[in-house]
Amino acid sequence: MVEKRKPIAVGEAVQRVMDYAFPAKKEFVPLTQAHGRVIAEAIIADQDIPAFDRSPYDGYAIRSIDSQEASSEHPVRFQVVGEIGAGFVYEEDVGYRQAVRIMTGAPIPKGCDAVVMLELTQTFEVNHQTYMSIKRSFAAGTNISYKGEEVRQGTTLITAGQYINPGVMALLATFGYQQVPVFRKVTVGVIATGSELLEPEEALQPGKIRNSNAYMVMAQIERAGAEVQYFGKLSDDLDLCIEIVGETLQKVDILLTTGGVSVGDYDYLPAIYQAIQADVLFNKVAMRPGSVTTVAARNGQLLFGLSGNPSACYVGFELFVRPIIRTAFGNPQPHLRREQAILGADFTKPNPFTRFVRASAYYEKGQLIAVPSGFDKSSAVSSLAAANAFIMLPGGSRGYEKGRQVAVLLLEDLQGSEWPWDNIKKSSKS
Amino acid sequence: MVEKRKPIAVGEAVQRVMDYAFPAKKEFVPLTQAHGRVIAEAIIADQDIPAFDRSPYDGYAIRSIDSQEASSEHPVRFQVVGEIGAGFVYEEDVGYRQAVRIMTGAPIPKGCDAVVMLELTQTFEVNHQTYMSIKRSFAAGTNISYKGEEVRQGTTLITAGQYINPGVMALLATFGYQQVPVFRKVTVGVIATGSELLEPEEALQPGKIRNSNAYMVMAQIERAGAEVQYFGKLSDDLDLCIEIVGETLQKVDILLTTGGVSVGDYDYLPAIYQAIQADVLFNKVAMRPGSVTTVAARNGQLLFGLSGNPSACYVGFELFVRPIIRTAFGNPQPHLRREQAILGADFTKPNPFTRFVRASAYYEKGQLIAVPSGFDKSSAVSSLAAANAFIMLPGGSRGYEKGRQVAVLLLEDLQGSEWPWDNIKKSSKS
Repeated sequence: MVEKRKPIAVGEAVQRVMDYAFPAKKEFVPLTQAHGRVIAEAIIADQDIPAFDRSPYDGYAIRSIDSQEASSEHPVRFQVVGEIGAGFVYEEDVGYRQAVRIMTGAPIPKGCDAVVMLELTQTFEVNHQTYMSIKRSFAAGTNISYKGEEVRQGTTLITAGQYINPGVMALLATFGYQQVPVFRKVTVGVIATGSELLEPEEALQPGKIRNSNAYMVMAQIERAGAEVQYFGKLSDDLDLCIEIVGETLQKVDILLTTGGVSVGDYDYLPAIYQAIQADVLFNKVAMRPGSVTTVAARNGQLLFGLSGNPSACYVGFELFVRPIIRTAFGNPQPHLRREQAILGADFTKPNPFTRFVRASAYYEKGQLIAVPSGFDKSSAVSSLAAANAFIMLPGGSRGYEKGRQVAVLLLEDLQGSEWPWDNIKKSSKS
Repeated sequence: MVEKRKPIAVGEAVQRVMDYAFPAKKEFVPLTQAHGRVIAEAIIADQDIPAFDRSPYDGYAIRSIDSQEASSEHPVRFQVVGEIGAGFVYEEDVGYRQAVRIMTGAPIPKGCDAVVMLELTQTFEVNHQTYMSIKRSFAAGTNISYKGEEVRQGTTLITAGQYINPGVMALLATFGYQQVPVFRKVTVGVIATGSELLEPEEALQPGKIRNSNAYMVMAQIERAGAEVQYFGKLSDDLDLCIEIVGETLQKVDILLTTGGVSVGDYDYLPAIYQAIQADVLFNKVAMRPGSVTTVAARNGQLLFGLSGNPSACYVGFELFVRPIIRTAFGNPQPHLRREQAILGADFTKPNPFTRFVRASAYYEKGQLIAVPSGFDKSSAVSSLAAANAFIMLPGGSRGYEKGRQVAVLLLEDLQGSEWPWDNIKKSSKS
């Protein structure tokens, strides 16, 4: 009576999903909306930075040769022939022992080759003419920021697929991007299943629980960078379910359901996949939690059947859905960032399958430490709030001791990994 | 002629700013908008989790005592008297060698004290009555998730001031929050100054540069979690500037300007602060870049005068503005997260003042490494794009060698530090 499901390894399961990763599409957004998006084209410098020789300080621009004889005993006097603020150009020629008052950021006047900081000068007036004097000589090039010294025109500064942080925003503004090419956010539809589910506004009833998965997974979708559309709870009527799932697939890039993938009599997802002729890529993964995670594909479109258990649902999303979203951003490192850490507490549970323990990762003297963040059952919800990592424990052990090196997957990292899975090569198709 | 400014230590400067930190205000947002906000009240469990004894698997609920005699040679047969899906309650009494088909998440029927997984049973029919048999005994408590085993009613799960991540969203849904108490986002006004500035849509002109600071700092404000309002570029007319700054202060919690704080003849900010009778907390900090960072206060409201140089502006924001924004979220760790790291490359620049080197921090076998991310001048813009950390080098050295331990401040961390500054105690007032 019970369907026998054949579990596959986590890396193999991820690989099967990644074969359906779809290409990133480009759109343009105004500069003020670009922060937090992913850039879809390289930023190549279309000008030198600085674009002209300029002064990094407030002071006087001079010809360095005129300062050669200056000393404390014999200060050299310069006639102040003009002044130049940032944003303006001094057009006259500067001659023998002439100086131009110059502000930070202003272009160096023709003929000048050094800037003396204001603090090193004395200014005075003689017959309504301003002079300044200096008590030491200055070498050619003193306090000049040369054209192109920071970036040469033609240099690639940012490659496509990078996250737009505040520093990238500064580059976009510098190079005059009013509209920024970014990767389109994919839309993920969410449908909850389960007769036991109450929405947050409903009062508790015997035997029922509140629908925490939908709200959790919507936040995970947002954290991964995608748009979310929530379609509520699936009906208890199978025919209606089939109709709704079919319709929803027209409106979203990816469809995600929570619950209904187990072997219980009310687990409709297998029947729905069959009815809409979706290919089931796998329906059992050799991992805890989330072993019942099911993924199906129809016409190249992915349907993720995540567990109804909160921790299992959470893990399933991060392992299988996140990399699809990130790949659609042109991100070559779409998977959770994998790092080594020291296990900060004993984990004594026997471990027949690969286990993803919800954990809190932190530094101690620059060393990454990870400790389980609480109650470890697939149904747990409380341990997720403190989790910023998964400790990834290989199967086949009776537990792990504090101090041991473990692999962790970081949940809040912006960078990601290319392929964090052992023993499984990335598919040639992906 | 030149105003002499007295530099103060970074920690001392931060402390003077933090004395003006203002209290967090609370507002309510719908659950679907709570992700990424900061919670303003503790979440205390108003029910046990689980709320009732429930089955973690699909199977049969039995009285364990009835299974005592079961073995491979002598399977024990149970009469299947009903079934119970998740969300429903089985109301009948379960008697001697009776079993109830039970789905994952369903409440354990009265009288039963064990669940046998479906895979370990044989089901069959005799005279239209369903039976199942088992080949081993099960102890009381087998496969039962007990009421309250994960969380006891009354437990504080999340304290005020915590970031709402996907796991916290799950808790909010579980405990029925339709409206979530969060800290109000402070509004930061941004005004750019400098005759040399062009907006991104303007063509380049000799001696002028594009206004990158405003777009960069707006993204930094967003990253810190606040709202931004951009008021454009300040006029070159001092009287008009004074009027505009005065008006803008009515509309925002914090006012931030870029440029105009140096000692150049067109640096209007000192005159503006004087005209509106703001107290200057400091106008010179013993650090690079950003030494001209100026902060003033009027009627308890802070005015941040950041440098016009991109790197200096960036650093000034993260050190001085970010902790004010985060404190307004009730965050007890409002400053950049300080960690120890290994310097991944030589830094040979002599260092008379505390220096904040824009850096890329990453792990190598779980150890944090930090390398400077590029061109290191206060005017640099390109090194900011790759920066996710500052290397904090104390003054008074001629450079640092690769492999040395250094302090870093992490820019993308959600957690923060209580007080990352050496030798300076946090003010008693803050």
